[in-house]
Amino acid sequence: MAPVYNIASFIYPGADILDFAGPLEILTTSPPSGGAGQFKTTTFAAKNPVKTALGTVTIQPDALIEDVEANLENYDLLLIPGANLQILEEYLASNDYKPIGALIKKFASLPPRKEAGHRVIQSVCTGASLLAAAGILANRTVTSHHMDLERVKQQADLAAGGDSNINVIKKRWVDAGSTDAGVRIVTAGGVTSGLDSSLYILETLAGKESAEWAAEIVEFERRKQDDPWGH
Amino acid sequence: MAPVYNIASFIYPGADILDFAGPLEILTTSPPSGGAGQFKTTTFAAKNPVKTALGTVTIQPDALIEDVEANLENYDLLLIPGANLQILEEYLASNDYKPIGALIKKFASLPPRKEAGHRVIQSVCTGASLLAAAGILANRTVTSHHMDLERVKQQADLAAGGDSNINVIKKRWVDAGSTDAGVRIVTAGGVTSGLDSSLYILETLAGKESAEWAAEIVEFERRKQDDPWGH
Repeated sequence: MAPVYNIASFIYPGADILDFAGPLEILTTSPPSGGAGQFKTTTFAAKNPVKTALGTVTIQPDALIEDVEANLENYDLLLIPGANLQILEEYLASNDYKPIGALIKKFASLPPRKEAGHRVIQSVCTGASLLAAAGILANRTVTSHHMDLERVKQQADLAAGGDSNINVIKKRWVDAGSTDAGVRIVTAGGVTSGLDSSLYILETLAGKESAEWAAEIVEFERRKQDDPWGH
Repeated sequence: MAPVYNIASFIYPGADILDFAGPLEILTTSPPSGGAGQFKTTTFAAKNPVKTALGTVTIQPDALIEDVEANLENYDLLLIPGANLQILEEYLASNDYKPIGALIKKFASLPPRKEAGHRVIQSVCTGASLLAAAGILANRTVTSHHMDLERVKQQADLAAGGDSNINVIKKRWVDAGSTDAGVRIVTAGGVTSGLDSSLYILETLAGKESAEWAAEIVEFERRKQDDPWGH
């Protein structure tokens, strides 16, 4: 039977709505055949409720961080959205970041669930900084929002306590490879680049039919990985 | 002073998350200068909370339908998202549709607020069917999701009690003109087409600088109105 992949979609105060709404839309859109895999969403946050950027939408998360952490091995895709540069700066410097930083690190060390066969961490936009600060981007090539590239390197170096040997480039998305445990890290550029990286993940995990169907349903022409904004 | 436009963003059970998240992201993104107008969001629903399509996200709306209806003249942009064809079919046939249908009709009859100078109804994707069923699309040229064009006509004809003289075409978005009261109706194609129609609305209401800034921040290349999906 085609696997059901469990998404844990993190939302923090001031997170960018489209950074997670785009991927959730793409990943949960299945063709009539069902495709070669389907996705089920769990949103989670430190507190209930949680407001997205500029108070656009108030979310009632399905779970709290501690609930997801307690069952972390059941989740196959961890989705980490970005926020604007200042909100993220303050978030990273606060104690609020610590639980999610620890969760990201732990998730990166869990081998894929047998029934799923894949485990993925997906950052969208400046969400890459949250991965960098968790210390999982050292020695990798990654991307982020085109205004955030320098900060991702700073965070990765800070987490490494020196030169992290990270390579931050401007792309639509970058598959940053897998951790020792076999968790794939996929980083996207700014906001709508998360649609492209999600179609890449959907194709990898659920097949080409699913990705083509999702793109058609949302009327989105997939953009090339090497064709970043302003390139 | 540049006006603040109040968005009333409707959410119903099974509504498509990207249909409203895309427009809210675009409309609330302002350049450092502030641009020639800014947008503030109020989400509203029949009940609290409300789940989007496939349970992807549970929203705690800022207000209920009756709250927004009681202050309807304070809102400048009414955003109506779509849903998948079956969810929408059942919604339109149910009593649940009636309050929002009545609200759409009333909003279409309110002249723009003096401080704002514009009033807009924006449908995204199959949300056009909700406008059609409210009887405000007769004698207009509109668009919707590329799989929903026929249904929009059926709903418009049903509301008109005969031939509504609606012209439903496949475009990225269509500015369907203004009502007698001066409320502009902007319809978009499927899901991500709402990003394009929002950039059009943003440019019209807040100026070119704002629209160009928003497109840059979300790393989205604006698509042409005449370049619909599959064309």
